[in-house]
Amino acid sequence: MSSEIDQKFKLPARYAGSEKSVWVEYIQLALEHKPLNLGQGFPDYPPPRYVTDTLAEVANSDNCLIHQYTRGFGHPRLVAAIAKLYSKLIGREINPQTEVLTTLGAYEALFSSIIGHVDVGDEVIIIEPFFDCYEPMVKTAGGVPRFIPLRLKETKGKTLPTSADWVLDKQELEGLFNTKTKMIILNTPHNPLGKVFSREELEFIADLCKKWNVLCVSDEVYEWIVYKPNKHIRIATLPGMWERTITIGSAGKTFSVTGWKLGWAYGPANLMVNLQMVHQNCVYTGNTPIQETTAISFEKELTRLDSDECYFNSISEELVSKRDYMAKFLTDVGMQPTIPEGGYFMIADWSPLESQVNLNSEKDKYKDYRFTKWMTKNVGLQGIPPSAFYSVPHKPLAENFVRYCFFKKDENLQKAEEILNQWKSGKGKMAN
Amino acid sequence: MSSEIDQKFKLPARYAGSEKSVWVEYIQLALEHKPLNLGQGFPDYPPPRYVTDTLAEVANSDNCLIHQYTRGFGHPRLVAAIAKLYSKLIGREINPQTEVLTTLGAYEALFSSIIGHVDVGDEVIIIEPFFDCYEPMVKTAGGVPRFIPLRLKETKGKTLPTSADWVLDKQELEGLFNTKTKMIILNTPHNPLGKVFSREELEFIADLCKKWNVLCVSDEVYEWIVYKPNKHIRIATLPGMWERTITIGSAGKTFSVTGWKLGWAYGPANLMVNLQMVHQNCVYTGNTPIQETTAISFEKELTRLDSDECYFNSISEELVSKRDYMAKFLTDVGMQPTIPEGGYFMIADWSPLESQVNLNSEKDKYKDYRFTKWMTKNVGLQGIPPSAFYSVPHKPLAENFVRYCFFKKDENLQKAEEILNQWKSGKGKMAN
Ligand SMILES: Cc1ncc(COP(=O)(O)O)c(C=O)c1O
Ligand SMILES: Cc1ncc(COP(=O)(O)O)c(C=O)c1O
Repeated sequence: MSSEIDQKFKLPARYAGSEKSVWVEYIQLALEHKPLNLGQGFPDYPPPRYVTDTLAEVANSDNCLIHQYTRGFGHPRLVAAIAKLYSKLIGREINPQTEVLTTLGAYEALFSSIIGHVDVGDEVIIIEPFFDCYEPMVKTAGGVPRFIPLRLKETKGKTLPTSADWVLDKQELEGLFNTKTKMIILNTPHNPLGKVFSREELEFIADLCKKWNVLCVSDEVYEWIVYKPNKHIRIATLPGMWERTITIGSAGKTFSVTGWKLGWAYGPANLMVNLQMVHQNCVYTGNTPIQETTAISFEKELTRLDSDECYFNSISEELVSKRDYMAKFLTDVGMQPTIPEGGYFMIADWSPLESQVNLNSEKDKYKDYRFTKWMTKNVGLQGIPPSAFYSVPHKPLAENFVRYCFFKKDENLQKAEEILNQWKSGKGKMAN
Repeated sequence: MSSEIDQKFKLPARYAGSEKSVWVEYIQLALEHKPLNLGQGFPDYPPPRYVTDTLAEVANSDNCLIHQYTRGFGHPRLVAAIAKLYSKLIGREINPQTEVLTTLGAYEALFSSIIGHVDVGDEVIIIEPFFDCYEPMVKTAGGVPRFIPLRLKETKGKTLPTSADWVLDKQELEGLFNTKTKMIILNTPHNPLGKVFSREELEFIADLCKKWNVLCVSDEVYEWIVYKPNKHIRIATLPGMWERTITIGSAGKTFSVTGWKLGWAYGPANLMVNLQMVHQNCVYTGNTPIQETTAISFEKELTRLDSDECYFNSISEELVSKRDYMAKFLTDVGMQPTIPEGGYFMIADWSPLESQVNLNSEKDKYKDYRFTKWMTKNVGLQGIPPSAFYSVPHKPLAENFVRYCFFKKDENLQKAEEILNQWKSGKGKMAN
């Protein structure tokens, strides 16, 4: 009886090959071994005080309707604030009703963009490494992902590579575009490399999109986390690109409250209707108090966009010293980090330390999985294996790397340094 | 250029025929005409004070991680509370890790259940009227909806029909089951009829599910809103049904905070993995502070389940007098309401008043759309046209009806009464 049920109720064909995500596995691992966790991308200290205070005020608001359903495609106050902000940044009037959709995290914005545009057989270009949901979303839509890796240039003579040294091969990229290409997914600032695509790089992509009539989904969730002198450029601002770009943002990343799961997409109305249909079919509407709170927070930042006080400016100042601190201690211990131009992740080549790791004690196929698991269990420090962010044929490109998040209290970054030094000196795992 | 884009970026085939939902249209209508709105299903007065107070406390919690990502398949504290509650109600131990999934509203739980189980060509039985997302969700999954309406029995001699008088034809239902049937979607207590399916009715459905190895998705979002002496029966408690039932609930309905968009599904682990894959592919994880708050609220109610103080018990006491008040004023004005056994909606046959409505002034195909639009614009009272909850061939069954929500302040119900009386007496639209 139960096997009759199992037989009939297996996963539909479009989900064939779906697996547990790296997050599910590594969160479980962390629960079991209680390492110092530099795996997940969020701060271990409080988000801006005014943001959480605002949520408390909204919760106790006199307007009791703030706890009831709001407009499905976005809470009016929030889409107004988002349209106002990006109208300024993009340099064109954005219509809050038709050109903005708020979603349950940038994740659902990606889902709505991909499922709403990719039909069976459409090709989608994905740049590796990629945020790991892009590939399964394209596949469940019936699309065909076409992968192209960012590759580390020779950087002889330089002390450390930066994320600008990870580049696309232009010919390889050009070769992927064809009449079946529906979409390219861009992520800048980039997770996990921290790459902030340059104007020249974006123009090359934009020209190909225009040549082949291709839609660009631009995942810009880390738009405010960019280290000087780098500048975040929105591909939608390039000539001829507004009409073929859907840009995605995240309140979780913008206000350092990843647990709020509020995102948005903006773009031309004719492209946005597809997203609306998917959203309407899948969740219908978002959380009202969270949207109200985010709207109020945006309104506050809008009054001080040019000031150092603006959280959108102060966040990178806060993070740059953490970035530099981590780069130094990883280098000191013998790894080779790539200095990120943006975002709050750093990847590092750990292979110089391979002799100090018992990779054979783990059974995973890829070395970065074995390294990170061994480190979690034996050294007490957790990172994420970046091969999770590559297609199967390209996973070996990532085997020598690990991804760490540096959006952590200084004392925890110091602790990470101590843990690594202790390990390096052969003294084993620190007491926790 | 723009038409080249429009051509290429039309909706994928699986969304063909998707339309704006009735909600989008009627919310817009309400914004324009500012009627007294009995359309949408939520209270116009505050939810339980302790629930919103708890959200404020969580927002200001010392535990700053409460604003960051939580476990994807459900915040640990919340799945623990849900498992504890339903273990009690279902009479079996529910595993919080593998048998519960929390979702972004019951809506996303429905989506994950349907998309996670329905494959191309699978048949899904849907009882009419139905919550309007069931049909497009089944269709985008490639499934084939098979509809069966609840029909109003002859109730001669009785003053008013009740929702128990709306019944399925047993033979008709039996005739829908076949080897291609993958799923039946049940909704009890029922929106919009208020029907609370009886044990005998549920047993008939359960027996067919077992006979044909069919999965039952039981949408029980109104599980706590049941008027004495009616009792909500969970179909998962019927013999042999746990192993083939996914039950869906909603914090929005349970705690009268529809804007929180938090739901859940529970059922046997082998059926739940399919939902996990869809959830992981579409939103990945839910809102942490909202889940924490809901967990705390459940913990409180769990300590007083048998007391009149328990919100799960007091809510129906609060609503029953509103139900009776609405039934009386609708009857007085000349409509024929159906007395609901549960939920907070009432449908009423408005056709005895047809001569007082200028249906020709509206252009919609179905009379209930014309009636409700005319009433919104000319009388200042908004209801929802129930034909939105029927498949195309069956929409005419609903043309004489309107759906009103009675979860409103007493003063607004009185105002609705006055508006209707004024209209009936020919004095036209009240000043608002
Ligand atoms: C590149 C990228 N896109 C999207 C997301 C998802 O954002 P959200 O939490 O708003 O769903 C993340 C989260 O880590 C990310 O790194
Ligand atoms: C029968 C039914 N199911 C599901 C839902 C959706 O619930 P939620 O707001 O939790 O997504 C509703 C909302 O009206 C409903 O009436």
